[in-house]
Amino acid sequence: MTASRILVVTHEQREPARTPGLRTTRMEAFSDGVFAIAITLLVLELAVPSGSEDDLLDGVLNQWPSYLAYLVSFASIGAVWLEHTVITEFLDHATSVLIRLNLLLLMVVSFLPFPTRLLGEHIGADEPERVAVTIYGLNLFLASALVSLLWRYAVREKLIQPDLADADVKMLTKRLTPGLAGYVAMIALGLFLPVLAVLGYLAIAVYIIVPFGALRRRAAAA
Amino acid sequence: MTASRILVVTHEQREPARTPGLRTTRMEAFSDGVFAIAITLLVLELAVPSGSEDDLLDGVLNQWPSYLAYLVSFASIGAVWLEHTVITEFLDHATSVLIRLNLLLLMVVSFLPFPTRLLGEHIGADEPERVAVTIYGLNLFLASALVSLLWRYAVREKLIQPDLADADVKMLTKRLTPGLAGYVAMIALGLFLPVLAVLGYLAIAVYIIVPFGALRRRAAAA
Amino acid sequence: MTASRILVVTHEQREPARTPGLRTTRMEAFSDGVFAIAITLLVLELAVPSGSEDDLLDGVLNQWPSYLAYLVSFASIGAVWLEHTVITEFLDHATSVLIRLNLLLLMVVSFLPFPTRLLGEHIGADEPERVAVTIYGLNLFLASALVSLLWRYAVREKLIQPDLADADVKMLTKRLTPGLAGYVAMIALGLFLPVLAVLGYLAIAVYIIVPFGALRRRAAAA
Amino acid sequence: MTASRILVVTHEQREPARTPGLRTTRMEAFSDGVFAIAITLLVLELAVPSGSEDDLLDGVLNQWPSYLAYLVSFASIGAVWLEHTVITEFLDHATSVLIRLNLLLLMVVSFLPFPTRLLGEHIGADEPERVAVTIYGLNLFLASALVSLLWRYAVREKLIQPDLADADVKMLTKRLTPGLAGYVAMIALGLFLPVLAVLGYLAIAVYIIVPFGALRRRAAAA
Repeated sequence: MTASRILVVTHEQREPARTPGLRTTRMEAFSDGVFAIAITLLVLELAVPSGSEDDLLDGVLNQWPSYLAYLVSFASIGAVWLEHTVITEFLDHATSVLIRLNLLLLMVVSFLPFPTRLLGEHIGADEPERVAVTIYGLNLFLASALVSLLWRYAVREKLIQPDLADADVKMLTKRLTPGLAGYVAMIALGLFLPVLAVLGYLAIAVYIIVPFGALRRRAAAA
Repeated sequence: MTASRILVVTHEQREPARTPGLRTTRMEAFSDGVFAIAITLLVLELAVPSGSEDDLLDGVLNQWPSYLAYLVSFASIGAVWLEHTVITEFLDHATSVLIRLNLLLLMVVSFLPFPTRLLGEHIGADEPERVAVTIYGLNLFLASALVSLLWRYAVREKLIQPDLADADVKMLTKRLTPGLAGYVAMIALGLFLPVLAVLGYLAIAVYIIVPFGALRRRAAAA
Repeated sequence: MTASRILVVTHEQREPARTPGLRTTRMEAFSDGVFAIAITLLVLELAVPSGSEDDLLDGVLNQWPSYLAYLVSFASIGAVWLEHTVITEFLDHATSVLIRLNLLLLMVVSFLPFPTRLLGEHIGADEPERVAVTIYGLNLFLASALVSLLWRYAVREKLIQPDLADADVKMLTKRLTPGLAGYVAMIALGLFLPVLAVLGYLAIAVYIIVPFGALRRRAAAA
Repeated sequence: MTASRILVVTHEQREPARTPGLRTTRMEAFSDGVFAIAITLLVLELAVPSGSEDDLLDGVLNQWPSYLAYLVSFASIGAVWLEHTVITEFLDHATSVLIRLNLLLLMVVSFLPFPTRLLGEHIGADEPERVAVTIYGLNLFLASALVSLLWRYAVREKLIQPDLADADVKMLTKRLTPGLAGYVAMIALGLFLPVLAVLGYLAIAVYIIVPFGALRRRAAAA
């Protein structure tokens, strides 16, 4: 038993002594905190224009790239939070590796306000918007890839609840994939049509957030 | 069962496997985080004046619009948090649609620091204050409308606790309405008398926060 | 039953339907969030000096008023959080009035970063430091007064746990008083000797934080 | 019983009246909040460069010291959070002294964004980077020393769970030590080779975060 082992003790190993859910609780609380802060900090990126009445309205309206960036980032972080919620709800217990993967995901998510600012300041600025949109897309892609990795790792290591049907597991695995492909496509598109790519990022987040399945079932039932 | 269904799984569907309150817990924790951060970030909008002693006092006092904006925003977010607390306390379980409506509410609430800054910088600036006050009012109206929608949706979908009396439900529904009407009236008033509208926004928040009913009962009992 | 009554429903009234601790839990979570954010935002007030090597060290050291303000504010918010923790731990249930008082306390606490910045920028600036120190002291006094009010209200309304000894209640009431008197004395002193008053604010916070009783008992036992 | 005793009441003393875990819960919630905020605020230190397309890419790439500082600080706070999680998970109950030590640790951790900014702005600036790297290292050393102190205090005062094996306790004590020695070595190295010291700080954090023990066991099992 090496010195480094103690810090990576997992719930399975300590199960007799404590409830296995404890570690997950702390990870969830910390994650919720980081998600909540990252999503709320976005508003600090919005600068206040100054000027006389018409100028102020114009000034506020002319900042549409900032609002668009705010909207896309809020929706994207919200989508990752939703996916994270579903994954942790299916989790039975955590391992040390899972907690580290989660920390990596949190780093990528809490980095997003920076590309958001980059995007808000450079959309419409013709040339540099391509750079900003690409960096922004890479950040979203990384977040999405880490969420996917987190889930696949949890499934492979059998950390999910034993009573969860295999079909459910496969569905969620499938569900997390289109986002990844979508981001790759949008990053490529963004090299030619940056603003369209930003709208694509928004569409991906909305697709994850809006429960189309539930709406369709409701429409069918009506 | 489409791929998009998995992510919208609700507690009712999974009830046998886990306690139905879990999802609500995570939604509450995330909401509390966003409310707490949005309300605390407001202080960052206050700029520090510089100058010699009398100038500093003058400088601090001359910033009254910033303090007024801070006060109104703190009271308004506090009021929404209180209403949110009552709603979630009456909730028995959540659905995927409710969680998304809640996310929308959080976006509107966490946007408020921006109009607050707008207001703090442009009150007293004669012309542009009308624009700032209107944008500010629209934000408050939207937040209030979403709280109302959240509650009505929860009632219609029977997500509230079954043991809650019908009279209680009707009362809370009623209670959430005057705020909406008040904001519409204040936004209209703000086009002519902006500062008065801001005081009106404060009055609405105070009306929601201060438990007049409890005070009246106490006065009657004394 | 008026419309405004619904929102002020207290735990006692709803006790049969739900556990009485729920409302308190939500209030604690929100309070912890606001305290944690206010205390962590303080670091944003520290500006980075620029210059060559010796200049940088000089620049960093010359900012001692900012570090002092940071230290005093961190200790003061920490002290209020500690007192808040003790009060809520003694609480059996909450009422609507208590939750509103708590909201007022949170507003005063989350305002502190503003006077902190004021203090950090104006200490040593000879004249305006008197204004900054007084505003700062008033903020601390208000926070302390509201904590005291919260406790006295909880005691008078019998919201504390029935099994808590009378002696304990009186002790905590007493314990919360010297802070109030100390702040009044320091605000008066600050009109003549501002920097000394700031050290006095620090001393009050340290007095609340450091568990002298426990240390003394330990020394006696040794 | 002196007045100051009430505020330092410990769980052992109040055990019959309430569950002993309560105080620890509140301390953990507040700590998680501060850790989450400090780690998420780091992104605000990243400035957005402006310019035409190639300039923007260059500008973004030229800011590598900021990204490096962001990465090292995120990893370091993450490492402290992980160690904190393990310690509190082993805790059976808290004492007033432990809660104060924890508050001190939180102050040191939430101060880190300031040296991070210092580092990001002065790396590569030849002369002042030595000052920035040293201040940064001292902050990390202090955080590490306080985590170590927290653990040793908890062990000495028998606050940890009685069913925890002696070997486990010794291992965690050992595990927390190399970080301390590492920081001392890196601070000394930083006086001559600042950038190398920063990479050393990163290596220490990665060593704490990455579960080498688990990876090695897995490699052995494969």
